Parts: sequence; C-alpha cells; structure tokens
Amino acid sequence: MKNISIITILALFLGSSSFAIADHHSGGEHQETEAKLKYLEFSEMGNPAEVIKVKEYSPQALKSGEVRVKVLAAPINPSDLLQISGNYGVDPVLPSNPGSEGVGRVVETSAEVKNLMVGQLVLLASGGTWRDEIVAPAAGFLPLPNMGPLSTEVIEQLAMSAVNPLTALLMLTSFVDVEKGQWIAQSAANSAVGGYVIQLAKQRGIKTVNIVRREGLAEELKSKGADVVLIDGPDLAAQIAKATGNAPVVLALDPVGGETYSRLAESLGYSGTLVTYGVLSGQPAILNTGNVIFNDTRLRGFWLYKWYQSADMKTKQAAFGEVIPLIVNGTLKANVDSRYSVDEIKQAVTRAAERGRNGKVLIVPSAGK
Amino acid sequence: MKNISIITILALFLGSSSFAIADHHSGGEHQETEAKLKYLEFSEMGNPAEVIKVKEYSPQALKSGEVRVKVLAAPINPSDLLQISGNYGVDPVLPSNPGSEGVGRVVETSAEVKNLMVGQLVLLASGGTWRDEIVAPAAGFLPLPNMGPLSTEVIEQLAMSAVNPLTALLMLTSFVDVEKGQWIAQSAANSAVGGYVIQLAKQRGIKTVNIVRREGLAEELKSKGADVVLIDGPDLAAQIAKATGNAPVVLALDPVGGETYSRLAESLGYSGTLVTYGVLSGQPAILNTGNVIFNDTRLRGFWLYKWYQSADMKTKQAAFGEVIPLIVNGTLKANVDSRYSVDEIKQAVTRAAERGRNGKVLIVPSAGK
Repeated sequence: MKNISIITILALFLGSSSFAIADHHSGGEHQETEAKLKYLEFSEMGNPAEVIKVKEYSPQALKSGEVRVKVLAAPINPSDLLQISGNYGVDPVLPSNPGSEGVGRVVETSAEVKNLMVGQLVLLASGGTWRDEIVAPAAGFLPLPNMGPLSTEVIEQLAMSAVNPLTALLMLTSFVDVEKGQWIAQSAANSAVGGYVIQLAKQRGIKTVNIVRREGLAEELKSKGADVVLIDGPDLAAQIAKATGNAPVVLALDPVGGETYSRLAESLGYSGTLVTYGVLSGQPAILNTGNVIFNDTRLRGFWLYKWYQSADMKTKQAAFGEVIPLIVNGTLKANVDSRYSVDEIKQAVTRAAERGRNGKVLIVPSAGK
Repeated sequence: MKNISIITILALFLGSSSFAIADHHSGGEHQETEAKLKYLEFSEMGNPAEVIKVKEYSPQALKSGEVRVKVLAAPINPSDLLQISGNYGVDPVLPSNPGSEGVGRVVETSAEVKNLMVGQLVLLASGGTWRDEIVAPAAGFLPLPNMGPLSTEVIEQLAMSAVNPLTALLMLTSFVDVEKGQWIAQSAANSAVGGYVIQLAKQRGIKTVNIVRREGLAEELKSKGADVVLIDGPDLAAQIAKATGNAPVVLALDPVGGETYSRLAESLGYSGTLVTYGVLSGQPAILNTGNVIFNDTRLRGFWLYKWYQSADMKTKQAAFGEVIPLIVNGTLKANVDSRYSVDEIKQAVTRAAERGRNGKVLIVPSAGK
C-alpha cells in the first residue's frame, strides 16, 4: 500500500462525483486551525505502539485545489497494524502516516474546488487518516451523498465503510453464487468483517455458521442474525455437520489461518470454496490435499487492496452503492470498542491488538478534548 | 469407483456409437476359450500384492447382447493401487475385480449385437480389466474408429488412453486458459501423466518446468518436449524463477503433495493455479495462507472419476476426439516399463509400486505365453 490508502484509488473514480452536499455548516470549525494540530508518523516498521510517533504542526494556508477536512473518526484495522509492522503484502514507503480510511467534514476549501463545500461529510481517501485534520487535493476525499442529519453513531459507522463492509460484501458475492437457504461458515465471526458477513448473509437469506474462540458471544451474534455460533476446536467439522444437519457448506471465510483454516477446509461440502483473508493466528495451515482432490475443495484468497486496484469503476460504484445505504439505515453496523484521540495512539494500537476486545478501536480526534 | 470402471460411464455415452469397424479378423482367437482362463479378484482391501488372487474359469456361452473380448493390454495405474488398498475417494464394493482401463479385440458377439464385430479393437469400459478375456454387454466396450493396421506398440498405447492422457489434457485446459509461450510447472514429470502433459504442452507452445526426484531424467524428458527439468528440493521456487527468467508460472500440476505441493504453491505467479491430482508422498502439505492472500494463489483438485460422472457427452467426445488421434500418430506416448501376464499379478503390482521405475506396468495376457 506504500504511502497510499487503499481508498486513494477509490478517489480516482469517484473523486469529482456529482454527489449532493451533505449538510451545510458554518465553517466555524476552521478557527481550530490556529492551534497546534497533531498527526502521526512512523519511520521504521515494527511494533505500532513503539514506532508510531505523535507530531505537531501549525496549520498552513491552503494551496490551489486543496481542501481542509476535520477528521471525525478513523478506525484501526488489522491491515493497518500489519502494514506498520511490515507484515503486509506491500510495505509502506517510509516515513509513512498510518490509517487507511475514515470520515471527516470539510472545513475549508480553496477557491478552485467546485465539488466539495464547507460542512460536507466525506470519506477520507488520501491515506494517513489517524490525525486531527487532513489537507489534500479535492480528489483525496469522497463526498458522501446528502443523507440528512446523521447521528455521531452513523458518522462513526461511515468511517468504517471502505474496508470491512466491502470485504464482507465482496467475499460473499465474488467466489460462489450462494443461494438463499444455503450455508456458509466463517471464523473470527465476532470481528468487524464477521459482523458484516452475518448481516449481509441474513439480508440475503443465507445461513451462517459462526466460529469464535470463546464462550459468551452467541447471544450477541445471534442478535445480528447469526444462525449458528460454535467454539473453534479439533472437532469443528463434526460440530458444523451436526449444527447444519449435514447440509453442505458452500463457502467458508477465514482470517485466522493455521488449524482453523485446516478445519474449515475439512468442513466444506463438495466443491465448496474456502477464502482466506487474514492470518491472525500467525500460523501456516496444514492441508490434506487428498481431500482437495476427492472433495473438489477450492481454496482462494481475498485482498481488498488488489480489488481496489483491479475492479472497474462500475463495479466499485455498485459495491459502495450497496454498502453505504445499509450503513446509514443501520443494517450494517460494527461494534465500537473504544475511542482514542490522536495523541493517545499508543493506547489505541495496544488495545486494537488485544484479544477479547469486542469491537473496533477508533481514532476520534475530539475524544481527548 | 465401486465395482465400476471410470470408463463404464464413458460407455454409456459412446457405447453404441457409429465408429467404423477397426480391422477385420478371422475370429480364430475364439479357440482359446476352450482352455481355462484367468481373472483377478480381491475380497479385502490391503496391499495389492497380497490381497489380489488369481482365479480360473471355463468360458461359458454368450448370453443375449453379450460380447467376448480378448484383452490385449491393460495398465496398472496409481489410482488402481490406491483403490485396492482402500486409499481412494470411493471404496470398491467387495469382492472386486481390479483394473480400470485397457484395450481388447472382439472375438465373439451374440446375435443381437449390431455395433461390434469380430476382430474390432475396443477400449474396455466395464472395469476389472486385468484378465484374459472379458464377457460383457456390448455397452461395456468402446469401439475404436478404423485406423488401419496398428502395431502392438500403438495398441498398448491405446490401452492407456482413458485415464492418463485425459487427465493431462483436462488439467492443462480446464483451470487456466494457458497461452502460447506461458509457463507451467509440474512435479512427478517422469510419470505417465507427466509425459502426456509435456507432449500436450509442447504441441500448444506452452513452456514446461518439469520437476523430478532424481538425476538422469533430463535428457529423456527434453526429448519429449520438456523445456526445463529440475530436481525437487527446498530451493525449488528459486530454481524455477532462475530457469524461467522470473516469468510467472500460471499453472502447476502436482501428484506428490507434502513439501512438493508447498514449494509449487510458492512458485506460482500472481493469480496462478495449483492443481493437485495425487498424494504420492502420503504427506499433508503446509500452506502459507498469507501467500494465498497476497499472491492470489488458487488451489484446486482434479479427480478424473468425477469428470466422467459430471461432464456432458459433447465434452467427453471432444476430449477423446483430441486424445485418440494423438496416441495413434505417436504424439502422445507413455513409456512401458514392463509387461506381465495375469497370473504374474504379484510381480506386476510390486513393480508398479516401485520408485525408480520408468514407465507404466502393463498386464498383457499373452505375456506369459
């Protein structure tokens, strides 16, 4: 991802879109630019809590074509932490500013900017989103359609729209044409992506087996629409067969890897597909290739970054067009675990890397104020 | 595969085909039916050299619709040995007669049979092919087109047409649309399937990296059309990258499994496909699922049995129509290691299971006479 957010590419196709202005605003927030503002930077790859440094700067006047956006919320995604620690598919160009998505409000525009207005809500598409404000060319922001006054809760949800909801939607729809009433399975079901998968599957009448690592999550996941919640273990395939009445699992989604991946591979129905999209366990998987032959197992990987690089504009617009309204109307929703200001970054990334957390960690510049 | 040869299914679609009669024959071989004839049977799964028993019987008069075929040659395939030892995807129904393909000549037909004539060459499609003669309904034989007088060598090659050449063709064409000049890789390149893959790839202008386990095979494989021959080892991916000048490997074919599978997975180009079709090593593979994500690796399995079950008639006719002429004109050819009569079955299966052999072991009923 180098220095570029994955949604930079998004900006290239929707940057000067004709979305209407969200809600008008006085621009009074601009006064804050006279104080010192904070941003984050890392000059070496390593433990995020150690390598990310808090920096301050004094706001400068906008250059031609630039826009100033106050950051309202930006999530810490696993892919951000992997990138900072040098464990991602593409290393950042150093020094780098962390954060890949988020939502903000336009507080100032240069005279030449025609598609963005003060007060408008935008998705942050220029990368380095964990900061108080972003100044960038207009193409670095994705204007959101006018959806009336939005609650803080919805605004926070929109901050998380470009990575996890799209990952869930694309994994559910790109590999297998899952029909209503068929079963899918997923590990790390209480992750943000896991929650979106449950919600999108429910909406489509697809049944879900949701695998987690600890007790106590069943009620919450079922309230989101989960059909079955199971605890991972060596007998996972048998547990799944029992829970589904031996119905074939046509698609399994796994961000864990290692033993969990191996178990999911053994749980698939004939010609089922297992999609890996993370390696939270840090372990390689052991694969029974005889089973791949006799059960026609299909093993694939999903990386959103490549989708942003390769999908055409129409495909991207369709995906966002499906996800954004569902976020706004509350169908798609991720838990928020905690909120930290920019200068609380050490606590924030430490919390984001902890197990047992139940929701996303957000950088909310106003949180510390 | 139960008691049924995989080409039984083939017979269902080509059984009463309009293929012309191959070459006329006096039927003099029928006199042999007065002697005791031998066939093979196993009543339990296990080591083929131990469980297969030689049986004798006296020929009986044909019933309505039946045809008597003298077996000319039938190969011992790895899948036969796996099935007998109970390590196949489908267990045989016991007692069972071993052998899944072969070629024979019609020596007698009952009056009702119209599509087969004495002297005609046929592929054996009723299973249990390791025997002196087969008596079965006409649908159990696939008449070969008239190709003029054929040498013993070509007849032996035709005996091996329904399993390995089709496996090679289908793996080369079903998963990836490999273009002229692109690279593929395969392990066990000196196997029968490996040889067919080399020959079919060469014919299409596809470049092949051929991986073997021992020195001394490069010259022979290159004479078949191999571009590169490498010895398997921990540095396989680096060896392949060097040999191809870092050209992407778009397809890899692996009947070995274990470490070889893992190495091939790491050798693929972006979005490359690895197809497993055997587990000669008996080992599971270790899979770096992070690489599956970031390199968009696609892992698939191929099982010919399922293809015979699921492909439509037109697809099957096209595949045979491509393979048979290439066998007859010598483009597709497998090495023959040795020939054994039916009652030499212990030696035959023992030889077939040995490493270091360089070719297929054939059951040739006349071999011991």
